[in-house]
Amino acid sequence: MCHVGFVVDGRPAVLPHLHARVEQRLYLHGSTGARALQAAGDGGLDVCVTVSLLDGLVLARSAFHHSVNYRSVVVLGRAAVVSDDEKAVALDALVDAIVPGRSAHVRPGSRRELAATTVLRLDLEQVSAKLRSGPPSDDDEDLDLPHWAGVLPLQQVPGAPVPAPDLRRPVDVPDHVAEWARPAPSGPGAP
Amino acid sequence: MCHVGFVVDGRPAVLPHLHARVEQRLYLHGSTGARALQAAGDGGLDVCVTVSLLDGLVLARSAFHHSVNYRSVVVLGRAAVVSDDEKAVALDALVDAIVPGRSAHVRPGSRRELAATTVLRLDLEQVSAKLRSGPPSDDDEDLDLPHWAGVLPLQQVPGAPVPAPDLRRPVDVPDHVAEWARPAPSGPGAP
Repeated sequence: MCHVGFVVDGRPAVLPHLHARVEQRLYLHGSTGARALQAAGDGGLDVCVTVSLLDGLVLARSAFHHSVNYRSVVVLGRAAVVSDDEKAVALDALVDAIVPGRSAHVRPGSRRELAATTVLRLDLEQVSAKLRSGPPSDDDEDLDLPHWAGVLPLQQVPGAPVPAPDLRRPVDVPDHVAEWARPAPSGPGAP
Repeated sequence: MCHVGFVVDGRPAVLPHLHARVEQRLYLHGSTGARALQAAGDGGLDVCVTVSLLDGLVLARSAFHHSVNYRSVVVLGRAAVVSDDEKAVALDALVDAIVPGRSAHVRPGSRRELAATTVLRLDLEQVSAKLRSGPPSDDDEDLDLPHWAGVLPLQQVPGAPVPAPDLRRPVDVPDHVAEWARPAPSGPGAP
């Protein structure tokens, strides 16, 4: 899930969307984003797309140094409505962004469905990342205080898959669902 | 964590912040938000604050009906920098928003720290909520397809607390940390 910011009548709007990355392109889709999708219309729309993952709660001895561990990416640019040709690629990518491998196990979008779908494309040209990781940073003079300090790691974990009540026959939960996991933090700054 | 949108030179910016609610006021704080905090300066800043929680992945038989279950709140308004008197209240609330009950177990902010902290206040006047819950909504003609359909619930769960490496003596993990849990979904639409 990402948050898409855009400007309406000079004022900011921020709505949650689904997104998928394909090479150096970001595709955006969201039923809640009708306003953004409409505003994009002809000529595109200036957007700021921000994705943030919360990795942990940082508990210091002092109130002042409380924080969170997180990873955040901000993409700036002009989003444009994709053409019909590109839409099928984008829709597959969006399904695979929800569950990798899923698009091979569903009915693909029909011509009618693709026509009813609006997808925005944002080229990944102006991108910045920011993160915090590691333990709290208390001031030296606070180190002897009796308060517990440390990090409470947080992770988004899947529960047991819940079959749709209208499944007409028993279908085993497929591997791509059973094995879903949010990609783990990686890189030198990983908690 | 919330996402704060504001307008800079006519373009949107969206940055993650920490927030705390006190009655009908929202307090915003974030090291990554220096730009927003500066822009708020005198007179305040038009913002859109959006909080989104992801509750599950919605896997339909058709690509078109894939979605996510989520809860999202959007707050619009003019954020203003809070006065020094209000700052201490806000800082406690922000600490308790990270871990409820925590503010009673830390060193409170000093005068110098409060002076170095900028907190924005946004009155909760223009607020809207949106959510999706429940199973996928496939079209009738797709119900006989052989694909598995259902929901993969997601939950943000805490791991084992990691003590700060500079703890100078053994301190038991306090109850407010050991018992931390993200508030569960509630209400009629809860998954």
